[in-house]
Amino acid sequence: MAGEGDLKLLGTAASQFVARVRMALNMKGVRLYEYIEQDLFNKSSLLLESNPVHKKVPVLIHNGQPIAESLAIVEYVDEVWHTAGAPILPADPYQRAVARFWAAYTDTKLLYAYIGVNIAATEEERVEKVNETVAATSQLETVLADGKAFFAGDSVGYLDIVVGCHLSWLEAFSKMYGVVLIDATKTPLFAAWAERFGETEAAKGVVPKTDAVAEYAKKRRAEALAVKRKN
Amino acid sequence: MAGEGDLKLLGTAASQFVARVRMALNMKGVRLYEYIEQDLFNKSSLLLESNPVHKKVPVLIHNGQPIAESLAIVEYVDEVWHTAGAPILPADPYQRAVARFWAAYTDTKLLYAYIGVNIAATEEERVEKVNETVAATSQLETVLADGKAFFAGDSVGYLDIVVGCHLSWLEAFSKMYGVVLIDATKTPLFAAWAERFGETEAAKGVVPKTDAVAEYAKKRRAEALAVKRKN
Repeated sequence: MAGEGDLKLLGTAASQFVARVRMALNMKGVRLYEYIEQDLFNKSSLLLESNPVHKKVPVLIHNGQPIAESLAIVEYVDEVWHTAGAPILPADPYQRAVARFWAAYTDTKLLYAYIGVNIAATEEERVEKVNETVAATSQLETVLADGKAFFAGDSVGYLDIVVGCHLSWLEAFSKMYGVVLIDATKTPLFAAWAERFGETEAAKGVVPKTDAVAEYAKKRRAEALAVKRKN
Repeated sequence: MAGEGDLKLLGTAASQFVARVRMALNMKGVRLYEYIEQDLFNKSSLLLESNPVHKKVPVLIHNGQPIAESLAIVEYVDEVWHTAGAPILPADPYQRAVARFWAAYTDTKLLYAYIGVNIAATEEERVEKVNETVAATSQLETVLADGKAFFAGDSVGYLDIVVGCHLSWLEAFSKMYGVVLIDATKTPLFAAWAERFGETEAAKGVVPKTDAVAEYAKKRRAEALAVKRKN
């Protein structure tokens, strides 16, 4: 295993993108890092200095060098700890490209759909966003066809943690709004995968708690509705 | 050089993301491919079959295997033709992460700012989006500090083609709306880089013509304004 060196992760308990990075570190067996919880409503000088462009989490600081953007961090972790644990990205260039395609899909189509559930101004808008979310999971489900246990095949890989980090947000919003975002009837393969993913070593101890997600999401909803009222 | 095999690129003359892929192929000296122009207002069965999720260009089809998402394609080209031409991504994991960070910045902050210039409903909104665009180029300019000729250093690399493919859109909108999006006073390093980039082998013959961009952008503006009027 590569020496961890000085490794810090700036995060928040609710962030799905921080969870993604922690899942990547779990996959590589990297557990000796300092996790530093951030308050996004009162940002620390460490956060402002290490991610001056976006001022957001996650930021991984490795031997003093900060990296932001969760997908870039996951690739970094895979490259730096390439001899530790299983590879995160597939080895084959075509399979890597396909995985990156679905990662981009997840962080736009799936993300914006379920975020829309939280900031919907009307019941009609919420129903629309629920349908969009289930449609996105339905698209992702096509990757799980052929009886694969995980997106990457027999075991967890890149796309599993890319999608998996969003699961507790889908669960939190399902509870908060009394809707079904992980639909065992419409998307049985996705729902079964979600159950399975939660039991993996990658997910262990790093999945955001739905209470933390709910508390954070309520603040973001209040902000979004205030902006909508102004416009 | 790796054998090209059967290589097709589905594109449009105006697309900056198609240009990005062609720039990557130029960097690798891959010139023996079939470029197939698409009509996005009347989509071909080849496009619908090869990118069923988004139905968008670019799609690179290599030996019958389709790949979508321009950044995923660029990484694929770099990996498959790794022995041809200069590497596109930096070799160092940290520098790769930094380049990927700025790529994500470019395709969100810069892109949405200048697209906003085109679809602005009022003069006030347009001014705001012009300012956002210049602010984004100003952020990118920080990467060019220390007298670097290109984002990647002495020669063209990943971030150069990621940003460079947007330049003719900035030029087209500057002309169409009588605004200054590449501002030699406010962002002298970025403006000088833009001039320099246009002269490179990477850009040669593949930069979208501003007329093609203007024609396409007018259609998109009409669509966007129709949606805004309905809401």
